[in-house]
Amino acid sequence: MTQVFVHSTAIVDTTQIGEGTHIWAYTHVMRDVPIGANCNIGDHCFIESGATIGSQVTIKNGNMIWEGVHLEDGVFVGPLVVFTNDLYPRSPRLPQMRTRYADRGWLKPTVIKRGASLGAGSVILAGITIGEFCMVGAGAIVNKTLPPHALVVGSPARVRGWVCECGQRLVFSNETAACATCGLEFIKTDSTVALRPASIAQAV
Amino acid sequence: MTQVFVHSTAIVDTTQIGEGTHIWAYTHVMRDVPIGANCNIGDHCFIESGATIGSQVTIKNGNMIWEGVHLEDGVFVGPLVVFTNDLYPRSPRLPQMRTRYADRGWLKPTVIKRGASLGAGSVILAGITIGEFCMVGAGAIVNKTLPPHALVVGSPARVRGWVCECGQRLVFSNETAACATCGLEFIKTDSTVALRPASIAQAV
Amino acid sequence: MTQVFVHSTAIVDTTQIGEGTHIWAYTHVMRDVPIGANCNIGDHCFIESGATIGSQVTIKNGNMIWEGVHLEDGVFVGPLVVFTNDLYPRSPRLPQMRTRYADRGWLKPTVIKRGASLGAGSVILAGITIGEFCMVGAGAIVNKTLPPHALVVGSPARVRGWVCECGQRLVFSNETAACATCGLEFIKTDSTVALRPASIAQAV
Repeated sequence: MTQVFVHSTAIVDTTQIGEGTHIWAYTHVMRDVPIGANCNIGDHCFIESGATIGSQVTIKNGNMIWEGVHLEDGVFVGPLVVFTNDLYPRSPRLPQMRTRYADRGWLKPTVIKRGASLGAGSVILAGITIGEFCMVGAGAIVNKTLPPHALVVGSPARVRGWVCECGQRLVFSNETAACATCGLEFIKTDSTVALRPASIAQAV
Repeated sequence: MTQVFVHSTAIVDTTQIGEGTHIWAYTHVMRDVPIGANCNIGDHCFIESGATIGSQVTIKNGNMIWEGVHLEDGVFVGPLVVFTNDLYPRSPRLPQMRTRYADRGWLKPTVIKRGASLGAGSVILAGITIGEFCMVGAGAIVNKTLPPHALVVGSPARVRGWVCECGQRLVFSNETAACATCGLEFIKTDSTVALRPASIAQAV
Repeated sequence: MTQVFVHSTAIVDTTQIGEGTHIWAYTHVMRDVPIGANCNIGDHCFIESGATIGSQVTIKNGNMIWEGVHLEDGVFVGPLVVFTNDLYPRSPRLPQMRTRYADRGWLKPTVIKRGASLGAGSVILAGITIGEFCMVGAGAIVNKTLPPHALVVGSPARVRGWVCECGQRLVFSNETAACATCGLEFIKTDSTVALRPASIAQAV
């Protein structure tokens, strides 16, 4: 049986961890965080109560997954990705801020959909959704919800193309594309990319 | 009595810590750093001798506060903010650098004034001052001194608006503004925003 | 005799460390990483098997040096620099990715040449070379190979000038420049800067 691995220097207070998941050195997971099976969570990470982590997720080193951040199955989080959950943060210890931080009205959730990749050092603004199988370039600053399969780079991030489930860039002709690497077929309608019906059974 | 909390995995060599301050996991504070009261310093931080920290300061995870960086009362430092203290760094171990690093001439101090917020992943160049109650957007690269209450975003950061002490965006009409959230009143003179005299007593 | 210093909270699995090198708190170095003499590796770093580190290298806090990243002698890595080694990353745990991650074809090496400086929070894309004595500005996103002595800033990084071995900016006149600080002389030919033959003996 594959078991959960927790490094001896890690602090893991949640008990909801799926089989085969590894948690590495100096990482701190707070209580009640659900973490799926077969994940890999690198060194120097912090996962806060109120975050959720699917299965087959890869979280590289130095990441902080805050309350309100939700990573679906198969997500890749590159090193030092910057998540947020408050659009106008102030020190909650300032007397001026007692009202604002008296409840959770300030909290803006973020959802990273199945299979998406967040490049190293990218910044993900609070309150948005990154679509399935998106690829966010290293250092990109994402301040808007992204449609599935979008490839984005820059500050602020702009859509520069589209990628397959396997990460290969898609080349569209007459609004259809077949992945040169894995063969999955896609259709583009009104700037939205989706698997062709014929490919859905083929996709894993 | 509220006391100082230091997590069991933290290394804290300073003895100058105000009451009610919390220092969390895997954080390292060097000696002689003065830290005020009621601060919260997250996991995986490093605070170097020669930095100073006021009271009611919130330092989120993964921050490094270097010698020459000064955080006044009520400052918010989002996760993974990047501070610097040398504008033309080289490895001090290079033989070519013996002269430059023989004294502290290379050190450029940075001051973050009372109540300012530094967004997640922002980069603060050495030698500048961030004015009172400024708000620096996530991922912004700040290379110039900022006036009080400025809201800045981008790379390099540009002023895009003005914010109240409570973080609410201010809308000016005839060079005056009243905060829609907390009611504080401001005047703008020559691109400088300040509390109206009538509001000064009202401000905390 | 100067010896190797390893902080009590660090995990160091390599045995190839040169004399005079210091490794600080909460840092994790994997096995078989060669590290030269007189290096300084700050807190909260991670160095992966398959990386190489020269002598007189300064690695500030919070850095992750991945497999395929090579730092030559005298390199300066500012705090929270973001390295990468895969241009189209996906979670290797996704069933769709079994083929791509079955071998090391995805790995794109990065070389930081002798004496170069990487500014705080800069992002270094996989597969490029940073030339000798380059200076990368804080927060710059470098996506192309850089010639020696280049000073670059921005997103993406652009060449904005040239710097001496000692870090001083060079002012060219008739394609020659003498460093105002250390006196080394340079010639520029076809946008490439090099030491003048007369200066080569003088350089350390």
